[in-house]
Amino acid sequence: MEHRLTETISLLARTPAALNALLRDLPEIWTLRNEGEKTWSAFDVIGHLIHGERTDWMPRAKRILESGESRPFDPFDRWAQEQESLGQSLEQLLDEFVRLRWENLNELRGLNLTEQDMERRGRHPALGIVTLSQLLSTWAVHDLTHLHQISRLMAYQYRNTVGPWGAYLGVLQCAGHSA
Amino acid sequence: MEHRLTETISLLARTPAALNALLRDLPEIWTLRNEGEKTWSAFDVIGHLIHGERTDWMPRAKRILESGESRPFDPFDRWAQEQESLGQSLEQLLDEFVRLRWENLNELRGLNLTEQDMERRGRHPALGIVTLSQLLSTWAVHDLTHLHQISRLMAYQYRNTVGPWGAYLGVLQCAGHSA
Repeated sequence: MEHRLTETISLLARTPAALNALLRDLPEIWTLRNEGEKTWSAFDVIGHLIHGERTDWMPRAKRILESGESRPFDPFDRWAQEQESLGQSLEQLLDEFVRLRWENLNELRGLNLTEQDMERRGRHPALGIVTLSQLLSTWAVHDLTHLHQISRLMAYQYRNTVGPWGAYLGVLQCAGHSA
Repeated sequence: MEHRLTETISLLARTPAALNALLRDLPEIWTLRNEGEKTWSAFDVIGHLIHGERTDWMPRAKRILESGESRPFDPFDRWAQEQESLGQSLEQLLDEFVRLRWENLNELRGLNLTEQDMERRGRHPALGIVTLSQLLSTWAVHDLTHLHQISRLMAYQYRNTVGPWGAYLGVLQCAGHSA
């Protein structure tokens, strides 16, 4: 489990740089377009990831360590970025995501979590009892689910330009899988 | 259309750096594991992308410009990386992908393609008549389909560690969509 935390942190440390390398200074067709009404652009996703750094992952980890099951996590606002990203450029958001993730991983490493800590339990407002290990694993897979989404929504912009090759391109068959 | 080529090249120029930032020096759980028999790891995907740089995209673009519909593209070997990647590290493959993509984009820019060129036609061995515009668009979406795949196969390694959060993580519901 200690080893798994190392693997989790390794991934969490790389996704901001990967998204920065992919998205910075890209033409707006790739970064500002979405998949239709009530869907997100890459710009929206980075805002969502920033809100998670501020209010979700480390605050919930500390809630588990401080209060256990007695005090549920605060609910997460999936649409907070609509207001928070207003007036910002994608490049500003990418910088902010890099900075917040860096700070959060420094704080996480500083907790010196033990294998026993990883089994400590907290209460999710909808899912019920969860462990610190599950929370930190989810933080990493949450990065991946949004990388999956970004690759899909970017591909969507070229859905008509690839012609007959569309049949071979799995990403164009993906309609998303969110609950 | 000229503008679209600029957008296509912008994306093609960034994916090698994004994959490098995501994967280089990551623990093997993320880079060498796959989703089961006959599926690929991230290591396998980078080998496949390298084979595409060598034998698929620019050779096919040049085939269109040189021979039009009269001479079909050579078939693409989807499993070539099994042999070609043998004995190499992921870091060597990432370096090779960066280098080959750079060379290919330099060559593509050097062709000074016009809007009329983009409508020139070639013959795919299975799909039939395709245009140069469709081929170059597909090159970009092919990057995205493999970024989509990599995010999914990495997430798969944590499918059991996220506990009840699995229900919220769309990437864990994705079974792939390849033809």
